[in-house]
Amino acid sequence: MGSITPTTLEPTTDSLDALTYELDRAHVFHSWSAQAALHPLTVAGASGCEVWDHSGKRYLDFSSQLINTNIGHTHPKVTAAIQKQAAVLPTIAPAHANLARGTAAKLILQAANRLHASENEQRGSDGVLPLVFFTNGGADANENAIRMARLTTGSDTILSAYRSYHGATGSAIVATGDFRRVENQYARGHVHFFGPYPYRSEFWSTSPEEETTRALHHLRRVIECEGGAGAIAAVLLETIPGTAGVIVPPAGWLAGVRELCDEFDILLICDEVMAGFGRTGDWFAWQNPTINPQAVRPDLICFAKGVNGGYVPAGGVILSRRVSKTFDERFYPGGLTYSGHPLAMAAIVATLEAYKEESILEHAAEIGKDILGPGLQKLGEKHALIGEVRGMGVFWALDLVVNQSTKTPVAPAVVVRLKNECLKRGLLVFVVENRLHVTPPCIVTRDEVERALAIYDEALSVVGADL
Amino acid sequence: MGSITPTTLEPTTDSLDALTYELDRAHVFHSWSAQAALHPLTVAGASGCEVWDHSGKRYLDFSSQLINTNIGHTHPKVTAAIQKQAAVLPTIAPAHANLARGTAAKLILQAANRLHASENEQRGSDGVLPLVFFTNGGADANENAIRMARLTTGSDTILSAYRSYHGATGSAIVATGDFRRVENQYARGHVHFFGPYPYRSEFWSTSPEEETTRALHHLRRVIECEGGAGAIAAVLLETIPGTAGVIVPPAGWLAGVRELCDEFDILLICDEVMAGFGRTGDWFAWQNPTINPQAVRPDLICFAKGVNGGYVPAGGVILSRRVSKTFDERFYPGGLTYSGHPLAMAAIVATLEAYKEESILEHAAEIGKDILGPGLQKLGEKHALIGEVRGMGVFWALDLVVNQSTKTPVAPAVVVRLKNECLKRGLLVFVVENRLHVTPPCIVTRDEVERALAIYDEALSVVGADL
Repeated sequence: MGSITPTTLEPTTDSLDALTYELDRAHVFHSWSAQAALHPLTVAGASGCEVWDHSGKRYLDFSSQLINTNIGHTHPKVTAAIQKQAAVLPTIAPAHANLARGTAAKLILQAANRLHASENEQRGSDGVLPLVFFTNGGADANENAIRMARLTTGSDTILSAYRSYHGATGSAIVATGDFRRVENQYARGHVHFFGPYPYRSEFWSTSPEEETTRALHHLRRVIECEGGAGAIAAVLLETIPGTAGVIVPPAGWLAGVRELCDEFDILLICDEVMAGFGRTGDWFAWQNPTINPQAVRPDLICFAKGVNGGYVPAGGVILSRRVSKTFDERFYPGGLTYSGHPLAMAAIVATLEAYKEESILEHAAEIGKDILGPGLQKLGEKHALIGEVRGMGVFWALDLVVNQSTKTPVAPAVVVRLKNECLKRGLLVFVVENRLHVTPPCIVTRDEVERALAIYDEALSVVGADL
Repeated sequence: MGSITPTTLEPTTDSLDALTYELDRAHVFHSWSAQAALHPLTVAGASGCEVWDHSGKRYLDFSSQLINTNIGHTHPKVTAAIQKQAAVLPTIAPAHANLARGTAAKLILQAANRLHASENEQRGSDGVLPLVFFTNGGADANENAIRMARLTTGSDTILSAYRSYHGATGSAIVATGDFRRVENQYARGHVHFFGPYPYRSEFWSTSPEEETTRALHHLRRVIECEGGAGAIAAVLLETIPGTAGVIVPPAGWLAGVRELCDEFDILLICDEVMAGFGRTGDWFAWQNPTINPQAVRPDLICFAKGVNGGYVPAGGVILSRRVSKTFDERFYPGGLTYSGHPLAMAAIVATLEAYKEESILEHAAEIGKDILGPGLQKLGEKHALIGEVRGMGVFWALDLVVNQSTKTPVAPAVVVRLKNECLKRGLLVFVVENRLHVTPPCIVTRDEVERALAIYDEALSVVGADL
């Protein structure tokens, strides 16, 4: 172990796989796991939709890792931008102005303001999204959106859905001793509700329309019971709940929530960390006409992952003027060392340019409509294991069941077997609870989709035959 | 504005300064600020201890930005490692094993285990620090250390100091709806105490020794009043409170806290986000014999910033076996997309190698002892504005007062003037409340220190003369 030159990290021989595995098991503590029984896959390099280990064994990546490499792995334009920025100025304090940061903000706001007639980018104009606050990832994007909503409204309460994931942070500012703690400590204020989920309704509904009406009634009752107008800071929503199962909401949901928010003077925060930047074939899922035909607008939008493929950790919050004006003269009690980190910003600029130059959004939408969606639906018809196929673009889930009429979820062991059968065949997949999430990079080719569909088909046949 | 090519970010003409400033003011929301009156400095590039704008105006950086560029700006070895890793594998999910990540963990643990006779790195051996959990920065490092301490002890309460900063996150996991929220929601559990601060004692002490004894008595009383043995998860300490004023604790403090923790069965978390990786001339401040002559050891250590100079956002927690064994068989309910991000890890590996190859730690210690410390003390003798000079290595603060016997802090406007007088003379400084923090990169040369001391001297003379 003493002989390795650690900065020489390119794939060479498979003894490096053994070393990599050994170092990981000896020294690395893993997220969301019991540590003893882990057997991580070794990954040495990646390109486009493929990853490989040191021995050269390749896998087609239909996980996009944690649904972040929307632009694929090691995109040459983004790699070049990182390399260039690294040589000039990798990091700078958030207080200073930097061209990469300002440009990234401008491009993100151009994307976010797409739905709106006026492309006026001036600070003073209401009705558009004028500002971005940058963070290190999705969790702290949500942290700051929540903070902004609480300070803008003067209320504590944040309503969010049970079927959601918004990040894993919850204590550091309360542990902090200096004055910045004082405005940030909330011993109360988080209330959860159920959103619409036609396949597994909590509201005994029999159609998506009924599910929407009932989910909105439920949300209204929660709002009223939590104190109604003036008592609630924000409704925080994943526009499409992701980890919870790619639960695409029916067409009336988002507009209905916006209406409730307006009625009760509540801010609407869309968490687009997973759904944003290409998954649905749009910049943001809330811009997708299937989800939001009424073109309503959130007050705050959180992003991360796809904004630069995760090549450099980055996230952020897009502020409406309604929120941002709170902090024109008032101190904003939030921040972080790497807010608007130039290396991350250069990766954002290059990624957003590549999305446009290579028509990646349009491609993701087409792939979903023409081949990935229909292919998965066909698997759904063929395999009794699949209870529902849902999704859009390159953002899909197969809800796996023991019995299609009871909809009883399959046991975790079944999903693990499916994952391993896919892996054996060279396909890296993403599984959560009783589901296979089908989430390739947005740049996935038709040929790669065909290859993956064939492997899913085989794996489902093998595992299905044993049940 | 339409003509810029945003990925071409190197300095060219000063019209780029105007553009950078304009983009920033139009689109970027800033940390810890009211937004309307900001006038950010434009930074286009940097090298070593210097930063410059697009017009070529250069500043000697005695802030290390947010005390993170310990290795200086654009260190060629770290830049090369980032460029290489970017081309091979910038990002990968935390679940997979990767050579850069395992190597970074190994090197960090070698540094952390330096005080201990046994360099055994095996998972099974008690008494050493065997594992690293990687995060995006310091806030989520503290988040995870707090989570680990709570789950290991079964207690909620975290004791931390009023004069501390541990990060700005506090809500995302409580807003999360899925099962991962359940073990993470604490409506109680943060209690603050006063640590030792000989210059501004809260305990009416007259010497550092008395301050230590009384601060330990105070902490004991807080522990007892919060329920004593079994009621408290952790004492969370910045080993040297940084933003709070570079308050180097007297020699008996850390050992006294360790003793209290042992007596009451409490874990000790050292937050080394700012003090670690070179500031004191050691890998970690708790290893510094001036601070910790008894060589006591924390149970958890949080780091970020200096571990890779902030070139790529990264932080982490070092776990003792006492903590890590909790999660051998038990699910750890925490994680993040970019835990152990390869690009960040490659930067860590190269940074730690550079620290060793270039004897950067030794250099920082010498600079502090030979020239920066004595130079600042001399300024303290000369200028009535300076109430106290304190620090070590490349980690110093000048506590500015209206009157040396009352120790009344100067008004914020005085500090702003000082900052501007320094900036005018080409020196970028770091100010907090009534203090100048003197925190150059660890690689600062003797000549650069002399230049900076002369500028501090001039600025103090100019501002002092007007008071």
